[in-house]
Amino acid sequence: MTTTHRPSGDLDTISINTIRTLAIDAVEQANSGHPGTPMGMAPVGYQLWQYELNFDPADPLWPNRDRFVLSAGHASMLLYSLLHLAGVKAVNPAYETLGHASVTLEDIKTFRELGSRCPGHPEYRWTSGVETTTGPLGQGVANSVGMAISSAWLASRYNKPGFNLFDYKVYSLMGDGDMMEGISDEAASLAGHLGLSNLCWIYDNNKVTIEGPTALAFSEDVSSLFLGYGWNVTKVSDANDLSMLAKAFQVFRDETQRPTLIIVDSHIGFGAPDVQDTSAAHGAPLGAEEAKKAKHSYGWPENAKFLIPEGVYEHFAKGIGARGGELRAAWISLFADYERKHPTLAAEILAMQHRELPLHWDVDIPTFNSDPKGMATRESSGEVLNAIAPRVPWLLGGSADLTPSTLTHLTFAGAGDFEAADYNGRNLHFGIREHGAAAISSGLSLSKVRPYWSTFLVFSDYARGAIRLSALMEIPVIHIFTHDSIGMGQDGPTHQPIEQLASLRAIPGLIVLRPADANEVAEAWRVIMELQHNPVALVLTRQAVPTLDRSRYGSAKGVARGAYVLADPINGPPEAIVIATGSEVSLAIAAYEELSSQGIAVRVVSMPSCELFDRQPATYRDSVLPPEILARVAVEEASTFGWHRYVGIDGAVVGMHTFGASAPLKDLQNKFGFTPEKVADTIRQQLQTQLQNQRKNR
Amino acid sequence: MTTTHRPSGDLDTISINTIRTLAIDAVEQANSGHPGTPMGMAPVGYQLWQYELNFDPADPLWPNRDRFVLSAGHASMLLYSLLHLAGVKAVNPAYETLGHASVTLEDIKTFRELGSRCPGHPEYRWTSGVETTTGPLGQGVANSVGMAISSAWLASRYNKPGFNLFDYKVYSLMGDGDMMEGISDEAASLAGHLGLSNLCWIYDNNKVTIEGPTALAFSEDVSSLFLGYGWNVTKVSDANDLSMLAKAFQVFRDETQRPTLIIVDSHIGFGAPDVQDTSAAHGAPLGAEEAKKAKHSYGWPENAKFLIPEGVYEHFAKGIGARGGELRAAWISLFADYERKHPTLAAEILAMQHRELPLHWDVDIPTFNSDPKGMATRESSGEVLNAIAPRVPWLLGGSADLTPSTLTHLTFAGAGDFEAADYNGRNLHFGIREHGAAAISSGLSLSKVRPYWSTFLVFSDYARGAIRLSALMEIPVIHIFTHDSIGMGQDGPTHQPIEQLASLRAIPGLIVLRPADANEVAEAWRVIMELQHNPVALVLTRQAVPTLDRSRYGSAKGVARGAYVLADPINGPPEAIVIATGSEVSLAIAAYEELSSQGIAVRVVSMPSCELFDRQPATYRDSVLPPEILARVAVEEASTFGWHRYVGIDGAVVGMHTFGASAPLKDLQNKFGFTPEKVADTIRQQLQTQLQNQRKNR
Repeated sequence: MTTTHRPSGDLDTISINTIRTLAIDAVEQANSGHPGTPMGMAPVGYQLWQYELNFDPADPLWPNRDRFVLSAGHASMLLYSLLHLAGVKAVNPAYETLGHASVTLEDIKTFRELGSRCPGHPEYRWTSGVETTTGPLGQGVANSVGMAISSAWLASRYNKPGFNLFDYKVYSLMGDGDMMEGISDEAASLAGHLGLSNLCWIYDNNKVTIEGPTALAFSEDVSSLFLGYGWNVTKVSDANDLSMLAKAFQVFRDETQRPTLIIVDSHIGFGAPDVQDTSAAHGAPLGAEEAKKAKHSYGWPENAKFLIPEGVYEHFAKGIGARGGELRAAWISLFADYERKHPTLAAEILAMQHRELPLHWDVDIPTFNSDPKGMATRESSGEVLNAIAPRVPWLLGGSADLTPSTLTHLTFAGAGDFEAADYNGRNLHFGIREHGAAAISSGLSLSKVRPYWSTFLVFSDYARGAIRLSALMEIPVIHIFTHDSIGMGQDGPTHQPIEQLASLRAIPGLIVLRPADANEVAEAWRVIMELQHNPVALVLTRQAVPTLDRSRYGSAKGVARGAYVLADPINGPPEAIVIATGSEVSLAIAAYEELSSQGIAVRVVSMPSCELFDRQPATYRDSVLPPEILARVAVEEASTFGWHRYVGIDGAVVGMHTFGASAPLKDLQNKFGFTPEKVADTIRQQLQTQLQNQRKNR
Repeated sequence: MTTTHRPSGDLDTISINTIRTLAIDAVEQANSGHPGTPMGMAPVGYQLWQYELNFDPADPLWPNRDRFVLSAGHASMLLYSLLHLAGVKAVNPAYETLGHASVTLEDIKTFRELGSRCPGHPEYRWTSGVETTTGPLGQGVANSVGMAISSAWLASRYNKPGFNLFDYKVYSLMGDGDMMEGISDEAASLAGHLGLSNLCWIYDNNKVTIEGPTALAFSEDVSSLFLGYGWNVTKVSDANDLSMLAKAFQVFRDETQRPTLIIVDSHIGFGAPDVQDTSAAHGAPLGAEEAKKAKHSYGWPENAKFLIPEGVYEHFAKGIGARGGELRAAWISLFADYERKHPTLAAEILAMQHRELPLHWDVDIPTFNSDPKGMATRESSGEVLNAIAPRVPWLLGGSADLTPSTLTHLTFAGAGDFEAADYNGRNLHFGIREHGAAAISSGLSLSKVRPYWSTFLVFSDYARGAIRLSALMEIPVIHIFTHDSIGMGQDGPTHQPIEQLASLRAIPGLIVLRPADANEVAEAWRVIMELQHNPVALVLTRQAVPTLDRSRYGSAKGVARGAYVLADPINGPPEAIVIATGSEVSLAIAAYEELSSQGIAVRVVSMPSCELFDRQPATYRDSVLPPEILARVAVEEASTFGWHRYVGIDGAVVGMHTFGASAPLKDLQNKFGFTPEKVADTIRQQLQTQLQNQRKNR
C-alpha cells in the first residue's frame, strides 16, 4: 500500500548529513560514544524513516505502527537524530504510564549526561520512539522476532473482513556484533521457520569491529546462512545509494513467505578521512580536527555545531510526518468502526494496550484440596495457567522444547500452535533456544501481548542476557522455570540448579516466586497476572509436594506479601523461626511438627518471594520475622548465598554448598541433608547458638 | 596414517546391539534416562571408537589421543557402553589428581544411582574417558572447538622435524538441541573461520525433539549453514551403514582446510517398534514390553539383561585397544627421544599436563608504587598478564572483540595472533561470541593449556552456561571481566553490571577476585596462576583507582586470604568495620581518613574474594571481622545481595538497589551515593544503630 516517494536530491542529502553531524557533535560534546555507525548508516536510517516506515511521530504508540529496532544500540545517536528530526512526540500517558519523553536538541547536546533523553544506549520507557532497550548485542534483533510474531498473531485474531487493523512491519538494524552473537542465530532460525514475511533485518556490513577488521574473527558467508535459515536475502552495495535502498525495501515488501535480510555494504565513519573504515571510528569521538574534516567532506560549515539547516524539520514533517499522520488517522477512524462492529474484540485490544486484564479473568482459578501426596508445582501451575488463559486471550507462550516437562502447554480447545501455516495459535514452539525464547518474549511483551516462556531453572543461565533486559525495561514477561532444585534428581548436576535462585533474586526489578504447594501456585499466578511493570521468574518443582492443609496452616493468600506465617506454636510465642521456600516448606513443616511434639516452639515462615516481602512495610516484616527472635534457620535446596539477610550472621542455612549429583531424589535429600531430622537438628542447634550468644553478650 | 579396518559383519552387529541393549537395560533399571539416541546412534559410536578413534583405553589421558565429545550428553549410555566395552582404564593419577575411575558393568547396572560412575549425564573428573561434562546443549560442541584449537596450537609449538607429537583430531556427536542453541553457531562460525580441519562434528539428524517432530520449530538447511560457516559438509543417509560412515570419516580425514560436519540420518529409538522415530523414545524408559520387542528386533534374547555376548570385549580389544595401544606406545617412545633432543619443550609439555607452572614464572610481576591518581585495574592487570605470559608459554587467550577495552592482549614479541594462517599465535580473537568464548576456553583448559578470555562484566551473563560448567568440571579457566561497575559510566545501564558479582559469587567453586588497586591485581594473578582446579572470575575496573600506599596500609599479600585488614585505628580497637572491594576500597579509605580525624575508630577491610576468605580458618576470619564488632558497613558498586552475611541483618550495605544510568562517573557516584561522605555517614549511622540495639538487649 505504501508508495515509495522519490527523494528530492538536495534535502535528502542535507538531512542525511544533519544526522551524521548531530552524531559527530553529540559524541564530541560527550567526549564519549560511537560516531562511526551513525555516519555510515545515516542514509539507511534516513531512507527507512523518511520513506518507508509507517510511523506517526505524533503518536509513537499507535498500535499498528511499523517498528524500528536499533539492535546495534551503540549507534544510538542515529536513532536520537531521527527521533528528533522526525519530531517524535512524548508518549500519550493514556497508553503507557512510564515516562517516555521526546528528544529535544538540548537532549542531544547533553548526550550521555545524567537526565538526558539521549543516554549512551537507547532505553525503552525513557525516550519516546525507542521500541526496546538495546546495546547488549543480538537482543534487539531477537526482540524484533517477537514483535513480528505479535503482528502476525494480532492480525490473525483481530483482523476481520474490511478491518485490516494489524499489518505492521518490523525493521531491525544490526551490526557485525549482532550477526556474531548466537542469540541472533536462534532468533533468525525461528523467524525463518515461522515464515515471518513482516520482518526485515538490515545488516550494516561495514567489515570493522572493535578489535579491527571483521576478518580477524568472522568470515562466514552471511547470505548462505540466511538462505539456510529460510530467509529472503538481498544486497545493497552502497549505503549511500538511496534508490538501491528503496529497491531493497521494495524487495522486502514484495516478499510474502519469508523474512528478509538486507545486507548493506557501508563505510564506518563515512566521510572522516583519517578514520573511515577503521575501528578507530567505532567507539570514540573523532576529535575536533577530524570532525572538521568530516564536515568539510559533507560540504558542511566546518565550525557549525548541532546545525539543523533550514527546511530539514519541514522536510521530515512532509515525509514520515505526513505519511504517518495520514495512516494513523485512517486507522483511528477504522478502529472506531471496528469498535461498533466488534466491540468485544475492540475492548480486548484496548485492555491489552493498557496492560489491563479482562473482568473476571481469575474466576476459574482452582483451589486445591489438602493432600499429603500432593502434586508437582509445575503440574498445578499448568492447571492454573489453563484456567486463566481462556479468559485472557492475549496470554500466549511456550517452551524451549520442554513443554512435556514444564507443562506450560495451553490444552483447551482453540489454543492451537503458532506455526507458519496458522498464526492464530497461542502455543509457541521456541525450539531449543532459551536465549532467543526469552528475548522474543520481550518482543511480545513490548507489543503488549502477555508472554510466558519456559525451560528448566538451570537453563535460565542461557537466557540471562534477555531476562535482565526484561527487568531493565520493566516489562511483564513471565519466565517459567521448572525442575527447580536437586529434587529433579537423576539428570544430575548439569541439570540441577544451585546458584540460579540467588542469581535471579539479584536482578533488580525481577520478582522471583517459588511457591510451596498448589494453592501457593494459584496465588502466585494472581500476583503475576496483575503485574504491569515487572517481569517475574516463576520457579516450580519437578517432583510432587504435599498440598498443605490450609485449615491447619496459614492461608496461601500470604503469597501476595512475599512471606507469611504458615505455622506457629500452639501455646506462647515462638523461640525459633524456620524460613523455607517451595518444596522445602513441607520439610520445614515436618520439622515443626516434630519439634512441636517435643515442646519446642517454632514458627514456620513460607517465603515464596523475597522481593515481594522486602516491599512490605516494616511493621508487617517485623510481624513475620520479629527482630527479637534471633534463632533462625532458612531451608532451601539451593545455594545458601543471600539467606543471611534474613537469618543473620549467626543464623543457619540448610542449603547447598556444592553442585548436586545424579541419583534418585531420596538419596540426594539424604546426601545433602534435606530431611526433617536434619532441619529439626539445625533448629535445635540454632537455639543453643543464640543462647550462647546471649550469655556472651550479658 | 590410520587405516580403516573393514569390519567383520557379525561381531560388528553384535557389538552395536550390545551398546543398544546396555542402554535399554540401564535406563529400564534406573527407570529414568534417554534410550533413543544410543539406540539410533550406536553404529556411529561403534564405527568411530572401534575403527577411527586413536585412543588407548589403557591410558585415557595420553596427550595425543583423539578426543570424543558427546555433546548430546543425555545420550550418556552410548558413551558409558563404549567406555566399558573398550575397557577404558582409570586415569593414571600421575596425570590427574581428580578421581576419574573406569566404568564397570556394575556401574552400568546402577546408572543414575548415587555413586555410580554412570551418572545421568557424563561428568568430567568422575568417569575416566569422559573428556568434558555435557548435558547443557551446545556446550560440548563448543568445547570441542577449544580442543581443536589446542591440537593446532600444540602442534605448532611443539612439533619439530621428525617429531609429530601432536596431531590429534576432535570428534563431537551432536543432536538437534546442540544444533539449535546459539552457542553452537558461535563455535561453528569461529571454527570455520580458523579452518580447523582437525575438527569433526557428527550431527544426529533424527528429526525428533522432546516436543515432537523437529519440524515444529526447526526447518533450517543445515548444509547451507555450515557451508556458509566455511565447513566441509558430508552426509550419511543411514546411520546403520558402517561402510558409509567409514567413507564419511575418510572425507573428514582427507580435508585439510576446513572443519567437517557429517550429517547422519538416524532413527531415534531404532528397533523399538512402537516408539521409534517419535519423541516417546527420547527421554523415558521403553518399558518392559517395548524393551523386549526391541531386543527381538535385534535378534537378541528377549529376557537377557545387561548381556555382553562372548567375544565382544575381545573384539574391542583387537580394534580400538590394539590400535590405540600401538599408537600410544609409539608416541611414548617418540616422546622419550624428544625429551633428549628438546628437553626444554618436553619439560613444558610435562608441566602443562600436570597443571604445574614453570620455575620463576612470577619473577617479572611488577610492584606498583603508590599513586593517588593510580590506574585502572584492567590496565595493571594487562601489565601483570604481560609479565607472566612470556614465562608461561602455554598461557593464551583473548577477548570477545573487546581487547582494546579489556586490555588482555599479549603485546610482547612473538605472542602473535592465532589465525588460520598461523596456529602459533597466543592471542585469540573470539569475535563477539561470549558464550562460545567461555566454552571454547573450557575446551582449551581440558586440553591442559591455560586459557583466559575477557569481556565486560555485564556480558558475563551471556556466558554463564559455560562459566558454570568450568566450575562444575573444576578446571582453571581464567574469566576476565572489566568495566565492573556503574563506574564504567556513560554507556549506561545496559552496560553497567549490578547483579553480576552476586551471581558469580553464587556459583560453587568459582573464585571471584575483585582487586582494589594495582598491587592487589598483582597478588590476584599470583593466586590465579597457582589454581589447578578452580576457575576464576577476575573483575576489573574501567576507571583509574588510586594505588594505595602500602607503607601506610596493610600489605596486598592479604589478597591470598580473600580479605585482610587494610587500615586500623591508630589508638585502640576499632568500633566499626567497613568492608569494601575493588574500586570502592579507596572510597572506604577516604571515609576512614575522615572519621579518624574525628576520633571515630574504624577498621577498613579489603575483601577481594569472599570465596578465598570463607576458606580461611575461623581464627583468621574472626581476626579480620571480630564477632564482637557489630557496627559494619559493606561498600560495593553492585547489588547489595549477599553482603548481609558479613555485615549482619542490621548491618549496612552501600550498594545498588536499581539499575544504573548513563552519565559520567562522578555524576553517577553522586546520584547513587558512592562518595566518601555517604560512606562516612553510613558508618556513623551504623554506630548509632548498634548502640541502640545494645541498649534494647540490656
